[in-house]
Amino acid sequence: MTPELDAGRYAVKRVIGDTVWVGADIFKEGHDLLAARAVYKGPGDTGWSSAPLRFDFDSDRWYGSFVVDRIGLWTFTVEGWTDAFGTWRSELRKKVDANQDVHVELLEGALLVRSAARRAKSPAIRASLLQTARMFEDAESTSASARIERAFDEELLIAMNELCPPRDLTCYSRELGIYVDRPQARFASWYELFPRSQAPDGRHGTFEDTAQRLPRLAELGYDVIYLPPIHPIGRTFRKGKNNSLTPEPEDVGSPWAIGNENGGHTAIEPALGTVEDFERLVRTANEHGMEIALDYALQCAPDHPWVKEHPDWFHIRPDGTIKYAENPPKKYQDIYPINFWCDDRQNLWNACRDIILYWIARGVKTFRVDNPHTKPLAFWEWVIGEVQREHPDVIFFAEAFTRPKRMKSLGKLGFTMSYTYFTWKNSAYELQDYLEELTDSPMVEYFRGNLFANTPDILNEYLVHGGPAAFRIRLLLASTLLPLYGLYSGYELYENVPFRPGSEEYFDSEKYQIKPRDWEAPGNLNPMIELVNRIRRENGALQQYENLSFHTSENPQVLFYRKAGRVRPREWTGGRASYYAVPEEEATASIVAAGDAADLLVAVTLDPRAVQETMVHVPLADLGLTVDSAYVVHDLLTGARYTWRGSRNYVRLDPMSGQIGHVFRVEVLGAR
Amino acid sequence: MTPELDAGRYAVKRVIGDTVWVGADIFKEGHDLLAARAVYKGPGDTGWSSAPLRFDFDSDRWYGSFVVDRIGLWTFTVEGWTDAFGTWRSELRKKVDANQDVHVELLEGALLVRSAARRAKSPAIRASLLQTARMFEDAESTSASARIERAFDEELLIAMNELCPPRDLTCYSRELGIYVDRPQARFASWYELFPRSQAPDGRHGTFEDTAQRLPRLAELGYDVIYLPPIHPIGRTFRKGKNNSLTPEPEDVGSPWAIGNENGGHTAIEPALGTVEDFERLVRTANEHGMEIALDYALQCAPDHPWVKEHPDWFHIRPDGTIKYAENPPKKYQDIYPINFWCDDRQNLWNACRDIILYWIARGVKTFRVDNPHTKPLAFWEWVIGEVQREHPDVIFFAEAFTRPKRMKSLGKLGFTMSYTYFTWKNSAYELQDYLEELTDSPMVEYFRGNLFANTPDILNEYLVHGGPAAFRIRLLLASTLLPLYGLYSGYELYENVPFRPGSEEYFDSEKYQIKPRDWEAPGNLNPMIELVNRIRRENGALQQYENLSFHTSENPQVLFYRKAGRVRPREWTGGRASYYAVPEEEATASIVAAGDAADLLVAVTLDPRAVQETMVHVPLADLGLTVDSAYVVHDLLTGARYTWRGSRNYVRLDPMSGQIGHVFRVEVLGAR
Repeated sequence: MTPELDAGRYAVKRVIGDTVWVGADIFKEGHDLLAARAVYKGPGDTGWSSAPLRFDFDSDRWYGSFVVDRIGLWTFTVEGWTDAFGTWRSELRKKVDANQDVHVELLEGALLVRSAARRAKSPAIRASLLQTARMFEDAESTSASARIERAFDEELLIAMNELCPPRDLTCYSRELGIYVDRPQARFASWYELFPRSQAPDGRHGTFEDTAQRLPRLAELGYDVIYLPPIHPIGRTFRKGKNNSLTPEPEDVGSPWAIGNENGGHTAIEPALGTVEDFERLVRTANEHGMEIALDYALQCAPDHPWVKEHPDWFHIRPDGTIKYAENPPKKYQDIYPINFWCDDRQNLWNACRDIILYWIARGVKTFRVDNPHTKPLAFWEWVIGEVQREHPDVIFFAEAFTRPKRMKSLGKLGFTMSYTYFTWKNSAYELQDYLEELTDSPMVEYFRGNLFANTPDILNEYLVHGGPAAFRIRLLLASTLLPLYGLYSGYELYENVPFRPGSEEYFDSEKYQIKPRDWEAPGNLNPMIELVNRIRRENGALQQYENLSFHTSENPQVLFYRKAGRVRPREWTGGRASYYAVPEEEATASIVAAGDAADLLVAVTLDPRAVQETMVHVPLADLGLTVDSAYVVHDLLTGARYTWRGSRNYVRLDPMSGQIGHVFRVEVLGAR
Repeated sequence: MTPELDAGRYAVKRVIGDTVWVGADIFKEGHDLLAARAVYKGPGDTGWSSAPLRFDFDSDRWYGSFVVDRIGLWTFTVEGWTDAFGTWRSELRKKVDANQDVHVELLEGALLVRSAARRAKSPAIRASLLQTARMFEDAESTSASARIERAFDEELLIAMNELCPPRDLTCYSRELGIYVDRPQARFASWYELFPRSQAPDGRHGTFEDTAQRLPRLAELGYDVIYLPPIHPIGRTFRKGKNNSLTPEPEDVGSPWAIGNENGGHTAIEPALGTVEDFERLVRTANEHGMEIALDYALQCAPDHPWVKEHPDWFHIRPDGTIKYAENPPKKYQDIYPINFWCDDRQNLWNACRDIILYWIARGVKTFRVDNPHTKPLAFWEWVIGEVQREHPDVIFFAEAFTRPKRMKSLGKLGFTMSYTYFTWKNSAYELQDYLEELTDSPMVEYFRGNLFANTPDILNEYLVHGGPAAFRIRLLLASTLLPLYGLYSGYELYENVPFRPGSEEYFDSEKYQIKPRDWEAPGNLNPMIELVNRIRRENGALQQYENLSFHTSENPQVLFYRKAGRVRPREWTGGRASYYAVPEEEATASIVAAGDAADLLVAVTLDPRAVQETMVHVPLADLGLTVDSAYVVHDLLTGARYTWRGSRNYVRLDPMSGQIGHVFRVEVLGAR
């Protein structure tokens, strides 16, 4: 059965409004006709709904679909049975056509019809069925031709399909889950900012200062504004600027060292404002069509209230001290990891859950989860389940930069989306290989990558050395390869000074100090950000996840890919991907594409320094074009239109003049 | 986990002596070191054995292996745990190297060592561990350097690996099955003959006549002699020659219409001989290194004793008659299908099982099962399990020519091997596509194809129209593509007259009449059969299943493929095949190759009529050859040797002169 993840251990992911395609191998011995259906149950449903499955001969497999129209956990499975009446009718047809005597066959039919009559609720239908049965049995007073005519009566067929007991009724051995998210789980533009840096004059910024920036951020097309932790910051072993162990008294510390005398994970750093200020910020964002995402970082500064109240929630060493974080020989004495398996874990886990519920009550619907791979997988599965049972529209974004299997597992167990290895993929080969893994493997069922181009922890050397053109290139890649992408503030200003050569840390990192900027400094990247975000909103192809395909560029310095306007539904089974074998009009109806469903072709240079020329190979057949068709490619970045012909076409990109790529909308001349 | 079939619902298949490779994703949160092992249990074992798993960084996955050295059903699963002592030791190393104080770390180590001491059975080891723990705790009288030296003591490590309680011990949620067969389940040459046709003088042949042929059949290299049903043949509606409905009194009928007044499935047709004659035939075959396979055809002629004794085991129609077989509008009134779901099914199924046990008691170990896809899958799973529990070396060969999913399912539920679509695959594209599905897909875990070149039911038009060259071509393909292949007698005489044009039935089919032949008629195919069977026995590459790969032949009329001498173990997971990431010497050790492990390259023309020339592309890298190496290809069919160089080499095949292919053994000049 598809879609099924790890033998049903985890739910697959979909977004509200999606058509869920179901595939199943259904067979029995012999020559009987079979029938089958998917049965499914949405959140809160008490009974099952059903959708018929139909047999496809070529793939020797059954297919059907249903639409998931509510957010939350759905359940589905498949039932198959012998179509006893259909089998009887089909064999009777052949015998009648061969002029064979069907006296006994009609008696057999009478048995079927009587068994259906017993299940009829309508007295009229029951009477009609009984009359049919008597007719089949009555060779004396009814002619063979009349009885045969009745056997093939359409109304009889309808009544029998409804009422004939499903012989051999067999249900798939597992009920499978589908977690249905709101649309922002698959399509959103993220922006990360430190509220304390938002004051225009260099003082400690507040939520009020942050709110001042929202109108412009909305104009730029962002959907989610993500804030690093907003809680009181520990004082013991507080880090100074540039992660120094010897801070100055005025140093503000890392927001991830959570907790001091003013409170812990449910408190707000007083310098940022009050809870009411925060709630106002959330409302303002919502009014601008955006939302605020909070950081959920389960660790404590030594001054966190929990350390005093619940020292047993931490790792206590044989000398009675609490174990601080370390990655030997490195020590992080400003951070105490939580002992999730402590004896009092039930209260601890509840307290961790209650942090989320507290912020949900203040309007937050999205949580960026700090380092989930250092906390138990079982905890995440539990806490996400707990929260989403009451608040199914809450989104969890895993900040896990770790080994592949752990990242995948976090996606499977419930994280809505995840950071990726994108920042470290800079060559055409690396990008294609990795993006194909994300969008063209069984991962599509459970792992949604969010392509952050930078983070406070990751300033990739490509940006360090590539200058503004590199920032443009990575922005275009992030915003067009996948529907989820993000920028950490400073990106628009091309900030690219590392802490030291070879480091991915920023110099004067905002993690340890207030960092005011002139967000609209001359030459900034905002015009391009605003443009790509608008193109994303206007083009359904950029809002889909599985519609990415790479095509030949003869120069490996230029990456060439297609974002398809329409996605044919695929299933992953038996070792490979295949298309659901369903009529094209049905498959097409399953496409959810806000805006337009045009095909996009994207060419991006990966060289931020020199002009690159290439011939790209347009996948003509996929676009419905013939070998010699002429067609127009309309660059949505510049507005320029080019007439192309055939597959092989010329592209020239000059990063120095700002032209680092094309986002071509394919405008076919004439009908497809 | 691999190998796993349908979430553990079915066992995978192996052959005795195979190394079973196991792969697993094992991970937890954080930075602790892990350890893992496969645990497994052979047939009859009361306890578990174990084999360590090792982590491969590149694939982020754990691997290990064990050897299955007994026939029958094995069980295995995987366990992982936190290597608490290893983690402690590794972190201590880093801190010591960084000159950090490790006083508290040693106290933590003492706790680990004390917990191990509690599990020590040897008083000496327990005392030693306790002394170590006291030393770690005693900062007063022991120097730091002495304590640290003890921490890294090798004997301590060995004792701790043995005794340290496995923290977080976690077992995979399912126990998986491996069915281990005897070698003939994967490598055998089959020959089908009708005993009644074996008399040299045209009278009704006997087991004694059949026994006369065995020495020559052994000489020809056959391993299994398969007999169509040997039971009394029904008289009611008996079919005459060429399936006629109007038989002559002397017509012998179809052996598949089983049962008359002389008995049913446990009786022998008197004209063939007695049970003692049959047992003697089995023994004679065994003495010649061959075995006799019987047909297991679960259907009855109207004269079968069961029809009188157990009419309720059949389908009774509303008019009281027993339903005969039909495929509307065709009627098979000489055959009654069994009603496997009748009320008395427990006795019926037991009776069906007892037929098999009866013949096992008379020396039969292999059953060719007639049309299993027309009987319930549940019955097969039950009866194969019942028989193999007592007789694990019994082989079941599914004669299912049906839809792909049903054929696969029969393999999964327990059939040792299966007929295939091979007879209908005659072009290079069809052969490559189908053989790749058989040998390069998850099917390798459960489905073993046996390539019969013809059967009493299937005379393919390729043989009808292609003459002797076609028979040579299909023989070479069948015997070299897969290790299991078979011929139905008459093949060696190029019998190719169909019942009528376009029919796959033979004219004067042996199914309905005695058909004596001169088996050594001039020009017969036996010399080639003897040769290919000898080549198969002498070359390990032809005894393996998954070692087939196709390579370019520039002329599609010539098929070019490699049977590799060594097979790198592969696993099927996450949507694709990958190699088990294990050291090459370990992987190589897992190769079971009787005879020689040389690589073979096979070129076969598919055109039985005209000379075909082609350039074939030798996979040099796979053979360990460099682009400009010279190497010798030794044609095992003719003895000719050619020196080839580089990848692209010339092949010319002339079917009219009998040269329809080459089986080249690659003999490399110099070391690999």
